Amino acid sequence: MTRLFNKIGLVARHSKPQIIESLLKLAAHLTSRGFHIVVDAESCAGLEDGSYPVVERVDLGKLADLVIVLGGDGTMLSVARVLAPYRVPLVGINQGRLGFMTDISLHEMLDAIDRILDGQFVPEERILLQASVIREDAEIASALAFNDVVISRGALGAMIEFEVFVDNQFVYSQRSDGLIISTPTGSTAYSLASGGPILHPTLQAVALVPICPQSLSNRPIAISNSCEVSFMLTRGLDARVHFDGQSHCDLMEMDRVIVRSYRNTLKLLHPIGYNYYDMLRHKLHWGERLL
Amino acid sequence: MTRLFNKIGLVARHSKPQIIESLLKLAAHLTSRGFHIVVDAESCAGLEDGSYPVVERVDLGKLADLVIVLGGDGTMLSVARVLAPYRVPLVGINQGRLGFMTDISLHEMLDAIDRILDGQFVPEERILLQASVIREDAEIASALAFNDVVISRGALGAMIEFEVFVDNQFVYSQRSDGLIISTPTGSTAYSLASGGPILHPTLQAVALVPICPQSLSNRPIAISNSCEVSFMLTRGLDARVHFDGQSHCDLMEMDRVIVRSYRNTLKLLHPIGYNYYDMLRHKLHWGERLL
Amino acid sequence: MTRLFNKIGLVARHSKPQIIESLLKLAAHLTSRGFHIVVDAESCAGLEDGSYPVVERVDLGKLADLVIVLGGDGTMLSVARVLAPYRVPLVGINQGRLGFMTDISLHEMLDAIDRILDGQFVPEERILLQASVIREDAEIASALAFNDVVISRGALGAMIEFEVFVDNQFVYSQRSDGLIISTPTGSTAYSLASGGPILHPTLQAVALVPICPQSLSNRPIAISNSCEVSFMLTRGLDARVHFDGQSHCDLMEMDRVIVRSYRNTLKLLHPIGYNYYDMLRHKLHWGERLL
Amino acid sequence: MTRLFNKIGLVARHSKPQIIESLLKLAAHLTSRGFHIVVDAESCAGLEDGSYPVVERVDLGKLADLVIVLGGDGTMLSVARVLAPYRVPLVGINQGRLGFMTDISLHEMLDAIDRILDGQFVPEERILLQASVIREDAEIASALAFNDVVISRGALGAMIEFEVFVDNQFVYSQRSDGLIISTPTGSTAYSLASGGPILHPTLQAVALVPICPQSLSNRPIAISNSCEVSFMLTRGLDARVHFDGQSHCDLMEMDRVIVRSYRNTLKLLHPIGYNYYDMLRHKLHWGERLL
Repeated sequence: MTRLFNKIGLVARHSKPQIIESLLKLAAHLTSRGFHIVVDAESCAGLEDGSYPVVERVDLGKLADLVIVLGGDGTMLSVARVLAPYRVPLVGINQGRLGFMTDISLHEMLDAIDRILDGQFVPEERILLQASVIREDAEIASALAFNDVVISRGALGAMIEFEVFVDNQFVYSQRSDGLIISTPTGSTAYSLASGGPILHPTLQAVALVPICPQSLSNRPIAISNSCEVSFMLTRGLDARVHFDGQSHCDLMEMDRVIVRSYRNTLKLLHPIGYNYYDMLRHKLHWGERLL
Repeated sequence: MTRLFNKIGLVARHSKPQIIESLLKLAAHLTSRGFHIVVDAESCAGLEDGSYPVVERVDLGKLADLVIVLGGDGTMLSVARVLAPYRVPLVGINQGRLGFMTDISLHEMLDAIDRILDGQFVPEERILLQASVIREDAEIASALAFNDVVISRGALGAMIEFEVFVDNQFVYSQRSDGLIISTPTGSTAYSLASGGPILHPTLQAVALVPICPQSLSNRPIAISNSCEVSFMLTRGLDARVHFDGQSHCDLMEMDRVIVRSYRNTLKLLHPIGYNYYDMLRHKLHWGERLL
Repeated sequence: MTRLFNKIGLVARHSKPQIIESLLKLAAHLTSRGFHIVVDAESCAGLEDGSYPVVERVDLGKLADLVIVLGGDGTMLSVARVLAPYRVPLVGINQGRLGFMTDISLHEMLDAIDRILDGQFVPEERILLQASVIREDAEIASALAFNDVVISRGALGAMIEFEVFVDNQFVYSQRSDGLIISTPTGSTAYSLASGGPILHPTLQAVALVPICPQSLSNRPIAISNSCEVSFMLTRGLDARVHFDGQSHCDLMEMDRVIVRSYRNTLKLLHPIGYNYYDMLRHKLHWGERLL
Repeated sequence: MTRLFNKIGLVARHSKPQIIESLLKLAAHLTSRGFHIVVDAESCAGLEDGSYPVVERVDLGKLADLVIVLGGDGTMLSVARVLAPYRVPLVGINQGRLGFMTDISLHEMLDAIDRILDGQFVPEERILLQASVIREDAEIASALAFNDVVISRGALGAMIEFEVFVDNQFVYSQRSDGLIISTPTGSTAYSLASGGPILHPTLQAVALVPICPQSLSNRPIAISNSCEVSFMLTRGLDARVHFDGQSHCDLMEMDRVIVRSYRNTLKLLHPIGYNYYDMLRHKLHWGERLL
């Protein structure tokens, strides 16, 4: 029987001893089943005892054909952005609290992973964004984002002003705390807190969500993810663009941020029975009556 | 030279004498240019003087290969639902106030229509919804909707309770004033007033927008328009389903409303230079600062 | 020792056998302690065995100097409106689920009531609204409301149009599903679901909360409860005014609804340790993280 | 005849030459009518030609019994905070665009001011906030605010976490972009953009408005302005507290911000005919239909 996956990359949220323990348990289990293991260097500082090959995170995509993440949605985000160029699928194991993306519990980890490795999974393709920061016609920064590209005011506390274009069509000028350009994956994160809509992962869409806009009619818009969004900062002395809240670039007035869909999608593998709405209902407490 | 269109259907918002006048002016102009004209019966009660063939609205789609509407967005809605089965494109002429869909002004009507008939237009495909009301396994009503299918409480004032499924997956049970299932076209209508996102017309999406939900985490969701939405009324003595706010069906507890994308799209023809965002900006006053 | 209360009125949500049982248990306990008991007739149809004097609800206020309600917030609402003219304080016992107003659990009922009768309680004054419906200068209906006066569209599904004045100053004309005029007590009920602010009970304020307004800048306003709010229906064929969702009056175009603070407040007695924010946090799940 | 006011302080938004011109015109007019004039030093750098006594802004309150501001709402804010200790009333003249507080137009300035000086005005008392920043039991900063005290995340882009107490009662812990504590005056500024309610100026209230809270049930609350609000930063490396967006103080984890009503109110004088709702309607475009 041919295996779907042979080399398994393992990533854990660093500096959590009990997660490292789980990672070692998982590594031992997979090794015993004959899989090759590579471990993310960042996950296990001080663990380089030679038991498993330790590789840089940026090399995981080249060396593994499946990556398993032990941690929360934040760890998933950081791994997703690094794996995206390589089309390596991703599985998420949470540490007790269900995540939007980490839907396997630690206590059922071994069984659930076995089934996934045996081909019993629900695959889900998620889009990513690719952002470029342009200053005077030169690209000064670029990054991928799995959740969102967020342009926001900084510590000065004053609103910023900017113009937005979609496919070179002028959309609006706006005065606000900033703008979120969110994927469906990011639509349940910061975008939701800012009044954005939930976008189902299968939707080929991106949401433009103003943050505290001064004009009350500046409402969220969802557009096709085949569009190019162009943001130009017209006023604001301390604006920044954030990529998944994990890296950022300071902006100067007249800088532009260009956001497009990334060429690859990221494949998440979920256990059989996975249902996006079940997860939403659980995370957003839809099951229960609030009032 | 072959013409793109030969038989032009004309519809006007009825009981507005000055619109009938414009309609006759347009009819005379088009006749003089050699087009065949058919006039919607509902538009011109009392006008049957034999100048132009008058046909029932339901037959317009069979007899015309382009329909021009003089009126507001409401008239467009009612015509759209009737034309959808025939794939006949639609042009909208407003009576002074720009509509979301009626983007030609009365005073520029003749020139604008001439250019469209000469092939100078921006086509835009819009999706419609098809809804069935099911009572004890029998369909008791069905309708098309261009804007939205709205299930809402009636005059009793008490919230209703219902369950929603998408592609047979349970989404949530909810207690609220009702639910809006909106197309991109409808996303700037009632849905927007209820907190829904704006969906760009090119987005193959439908929004599920709760109306005053009791649970504060019941937020709008956008899903692919290839999905089937199933609504079941679990509690509510005076609930109704409305189609574009133009027709409706009373619901009983345990009735289901099934909503899918309609097989045809509706093609709107806009003047060259049309830009969806320009229209939004104009209608939502995005140009100006509110505070 | 002088007692604070002598005659205790008892009310239960009708048609719940286990509540009637609790009511009888409470009545026996209070009688054994020497209090006089009167029982609300509506609460105990079929219970008139002579054990306790049974009185009409409208007479409770005259005959009792404290009323204890077993039920939910809905029962509290209906009793509050009847007791308000008499300044009789009210205590609420819930049936398992904490209410916004019924904060004593069934299982701790006897002890908690004993302490309250001994003078150990946190009193809280709540305002009520008094509404008049005026048609052609004649009052055609009037009612008290403890939560809210809600004017809303009916089953036709079309928005209504109206004008609002505060102390004879024009506030706005509005096209929407309706308007909520809410007390602080009602601010956590329908008003909250419609986007209204929470008003602390000690605030001498009333909130005007639009229901799905067409204009996105029509936001909730809180005004002093010493103001008179005047609503005039300018367009709408099936509008209604609802008082606490428990009684209503159909409106015709040009009818006016005048809302003022009622002259009396209603006094709720809470157990020692009561804290409004604790209750809010419990009911709105503020303790937990949703995302 | 006794005059209501004798010494008039004049303030202008600095670095706007045409405003200085208007200020000089007004000064000449008032001098010709026999009033004593003092001019704010900050308003007229380079203008110290001896025509009028020039005083520091902080001394205006001691030297004038009425202050007239030429500028926008921002200038009013900065003057209000300085004048508040002295109970000197304030009049606002806008430069073309009606402000929330500057309701006299430049072109009608002389007549309008004459009438106000003759006692024809509508006075309006507005509350201010007084904030203290406490670090390890020592006050490290304090300030007045006329609009709002805003605690918000800085440039890092990560949400902050904090706890809020009102009159020593725990309200909630929250994860969000920050919290706005707003006066009625500030309720139409940043608070409104963040989803807060409009509070009528006569309302003795303060609104607590979360900025993009992670928990969707964390909604704005209005409380009595006699309450003391205590904010404690539990997590956040770059949080700041802003006073009217005009001054600020960096916060460290475990710092507390205590906010109370200031002992004095600020009196605004409006022309006869002034109506708060007219101003709101104008500023928020309530007169017109948006859709």
